[in-house]
Amino acid sequence: MFVFNSWYIIAEPGELENGGIVGRVILGKRIAVFRLASGQLGALEDSCPHRRVPLSLGWVEGEILRCAYHGAEFGADGRCVKVPGQKAAPGRAKVLTYPVIERLGYIWVWPGDPAGAHDESSLPEGFGPSGDPAWLGGYGHIEAIQSDYRLINDNLIDITHAEFVHPESFGGPEVQFYRNARPGADYHDRGMTFEIEDTIIRFRTHAARLGQDGGPLWRSMLAESRGVAEWLEPIDFRMDVIWSAPIYTSYRIQVRPCDEPDAEPVEIYNLHAAVPETTTSAHYFYRSVRNYGDASKNAIFIDAARFVFNQDKPILEAQQSALGTSDMFDDAPISFAGDRLQLEGRRILASLAAAEREGI
Amino acid sequence: MFVFNSWYIIAEPGELENGGIVGRVILGKRIAVFRLASGQLGALEDSCPHRRVPLSLGWVEGEILRCAYHGAEFGADGRCVKVPGQKAAPGRAKVLTYPVIERLGYIWVWPGDPAGAHDESSLPEGFGPSGDPAWLGGYGHIEAIQSDYRLINDNLIDITHAEFVHPESFGGPEVQFYRNARPGADYHDRGMTFEIEDTIIRFRTHAARLGQDGGPLWRSMLAESRGVAEWLEPIDFRMDVIWSAPIYTSYRIQVRPCDEPDAEPVEIYNLHAAVPETTTSAHYFYRSVRNYGDASKNAIFIDAARFVFNQDKPILEAQQSALGTSDMFDDAPISFAGDRLQLEGRRILASLAAAEREGI
Amino acid sequence: MFVFNSWYIIAEPGELENGGIVGRVILGKRIAVFRLASGQLGALEDSCPHRRVPLSLGWVEGEILRCAYHGAEFGADGRCVKVPGQKAAPGRAKVLTYPVIERLGYIWVWPGDPAGAHDESSLPEGFGPSGDPAWLGGYGHIEAIQSDYRLINDNLIDITHAEFVHPESFGGPEVQFYRNARPGADYHDRGMTFEIEDTIIRFRTHAARLGQDGGPLWRSMLAESRGVAEWLEPIDFRMDVIWSAPIYTSYRIQVRPCDEPDAEPVEIYNLHAAVPETTTSAHYFYRSVRNYGDASKNAIFIDAARFVFNQDKPILEAQQSALGTSDMFDDAPISFAGDRLQLEGRRILASLAAAEREGI
Repeated sequence: MFVFNSWYIIAEPGELENGGIVGRVILGKRIAVFRLASGQLGALEDSCPHRRVPLSLGWVEGEILRCAYHGAEFGADGRCVKVPGQKAAPGRAKVLTYPVIERLGYIWVWPGDPAGAHDESSLPEGFGPSGDPAWLGGYGHIEAIQSDYRLINDNLIDITHAEFVHPESFGGPEVQFYRNARPGADYHDRGMTFEIEDTIIRFRTHAARLGQDGGPLWRSMLAESRGVAEWLEPIDFRMDVIWSAPIYTSYRIQVRPCDEPDAEPVEIYNLHAAVPETTTSAHYFYRSVRNYGDASKNAIFIDAARFVFNQDKPILEAQQSALGTSDMFDDAPISFAGDRLQLEGRRILASLAAAEREGI
Repeated sequence: MFVFNSWYIIAEPGELENGGIVGRVILGKRIAVFRLASGQLGALEDSCPHRRVPLSLGWVEGEILRCAYHGAEFGADGRCVKVPGQKAAPGRAKVLTYPVIERLGYIWVWPGDPAGAHDESSLPEGFGPSGDPAWLGGYGHIEAIQSDYRLINDNLIDITHAEFVHPESFGGPEVQFYRNARPGADYHDRGMTFEIEDTIIRFRTHAARLGQDGGPLWRSMLAESRGVAEWLEPIDFRMDVIWSAPIYTSYRIQVRPCDEPDAEPVEIYNLHAAVPETTTSAHYFYRSVRNYGDASKNAIFIDAARFVFNQDKPILEAQQSALGTSDMFDDAPISFAGDRLQLEGRRILASLAAAEREGI
Repeated sequence: MFVFNSWYIIAEPGELENGGIVGRVILGKRIAVFRLASGQLGALEDSCPHRRVPLSLGWVEGEILRCAYHGAEFGADGRCVKVPGQKAAPGRAKVLTYPVIERLGYIWVWPGDPAGAHDESSLPEGFGPSGDPAWLGGYGHIEAIQSDYRLINDNLIDITHAEFVHPESFGGPEVQFYRNARPGADYHDRGMTFEIEDTIIRFRTHAARLGQDGGPLWRSMLAESRGVAEWLEPIDFRMDVIWSAPIYTSYRIQVRPCDEPDAEPVEIYNLHAAVPETTTSAHYFYRSVRNYGDASKNAIFIDAARFVFNQDKPILEAQQSALGTSDMFDDAPISFAGDRLQLEGRRILASLAAAEREGI
């Protein structure tokens, strides 16, 4: 079940430097995305109309993309502008194009009806720091997780699993207060509030004194920013999460010493997107950006994000393997109190997909 | 074609020490088998009713099994007894259970109608030494042989293939007398007799003077038990085989020096089970236990059993690859005289499966 | 789409020395090809009629082929002549045979109606040097390219792709004259002429002065034959290509110094066959034989041919992956001027297959 009319991350900017080209399947569509010498981005169906060779096997030369097999040249508008050794290019050799933009630190394409692409409101909330050079951070992604993107989405909306899946980093027995979200917009000590607005879910949690049973990760932020080896005292911890349909989750974490309520918080944004590849697989893009510390440590943060995701991956792939081609909710699984927001996310996705099918 | 109403080996006891848990697919069913801290065994459908995560990814804590994803707790009776951070466990969260027992040196489950599980008569004959600590031996298994379990069964009932497939160990030109089995219960020198009783086939062979063309393995038994480097003289050799439907084969081998007819024989039991995984794959469990020698050599015997099976494996998998999803006997293959008992085994299996389908 | 009534390469002679046996799937048929001790070749359906074990897992003993599992013995005529330990061989145990010959340096089988096999006219033109010991060369093949054999065929008929896919060896901007073939039988400087006769396409090209932008390979022929480290001057270059349906392509290359028009040319034949395995995979057999130089360098030429093909392989497999089970021409791709002969080859294949289907 896909929502086509939305902007989707297709590549990291670092993959498209210097005339780069990347072929990726998203939402079941083979797409070649590339950057011409002038800097212009292009996104074409990843198939030469001559003999179906993926255009992503080719290369950029100046302002054209050249097919790897017979050297046919295409513009970013999909037109075949030249065939080597042949006077005229065949007029009907026009490759399907996709709207493509660079925003918020990523390259995005619009796989749906191009008429809707002018509306950038489907770009996610909370991804602002992703494109902001004032924030330190790196990029990471894992291709072709063998899991329906919605299972990864469920995982990202659901912070309650941290207690059992990620105890080495940000889980632990102390974070059971992540359950039982209540409507609202305030911070409650050891509580969670949420608001739902159209296709966006916002929720937040706060612990005025989060101790060692809340996992070491958030305390390590204070340690690094203060230049000390470790921070063993409890901390004031706030997490603000924004899930923007169809697939974007932004976690903003702010920590302070408990006895410095007016201190500027140390902040990290963890940004995630599970871009559907097929109905049973997804590409997982992630960033971890922060407003403190030392750029030489960026790789550590990206490695840590990958380590954490690799704890989720076997679970996600085992779920998919159990489901086969059926849907998680076909068979009426039991839900827990902590699933409330995850179920809201599923409801929003189903509603967007139904509206698309009905042409609303 | 499966026979569900029978006890099936699902795990070696060594896999379930100390709160261990194993997930295995048998007869097409995903099953998690585990041992609680009290020693009680449990066998549950390997799927959390919350979000379909295999319970075998989780772990035992005292008397409960905890799901790896959200920490839900299940008893060995399949009931969800607690969901972390939630007051009441959802009443309908009940996981399917399978009867499970420990007998004869293995853990067994009953994948069929539980009403029949009280009857332990389907436990195989001849597996007695498997659970007897007075016998030396080890455990081995190979997961997911890509072969219908019935092809492995055929192989185990059929000792005539040893001449060509296992010449380095117990085959050779001298054992052509394994063919042409005749009804009876006696030992005949260089002959074979068999009896069939309901779902059990018993057969035996004897050679009063088995020489070097009968393979080195049986003579090496005498060598080891007498503490000599090798035994080159002919030996008195007896093999008693019991095949118990659906999948159990026990080979009891007794050897003596030819000139010591009253000596206590040196004995080995080789025990085999090809537990169906899917209709085209199987788990192969094996043991080799003996009443002589030195426990430090157990691993050698298990390695030897694996070596021998790895001579069969490419044949078995090539048969399956040739068959695809069709049945060996769909296409009326030619049979040889040596196939008599193998065909009886197939007949018994087909009859058991038919009776199950008809609810007899 | 297969053409069954033709001779197909199934093995290199070096694979069938000394009682050798090879199992290979061609045109969807599993075939065991072997050489008896007397030198007689045999080709049987690769399946023992007893229990479907591939006969190619067995071995040749003198004048019989023995099954690996129960030792049944088969003659090259497919008859089961003996079952070990059994007086009479079962009369109906007859394995399907295929006509098999050794010609032109290869072992060939005829997978179609055997009545047509006496006609050796389907052996390809231009493969003569392949079996001629006066020519130096080696053998190479790659099994199971994941590509419809027709895509490889297209690639072999189409020399225009060399400019972009093989610039390190025989491509480069200078060879754009490979396009725009005109009917004829003469050499034209920097032109190409072709003739089509029934199921054979012949074409040739000539460059009176081929320079460094034509790739280094042809000049290296002169260097080696003259015993010099390199040959930087332009050369007189002639290439004669014969494509014989269904799958054979012979390239004869002759080079001379430009100022020695009467010199004996230095010659290489590059011979290629993409033997269909399934409808979406093929075995690729190739040779490179030459009339000059040093036999110790044969391996270099075979490695070079493999290097070149490994530049094509990702393209061919990407085409197949894009097509799935559909046909390249189902979807009316655009063709270029340089595709003329490739399209003729497709037309000839389609016509041969249609005639077979209609029993013409």
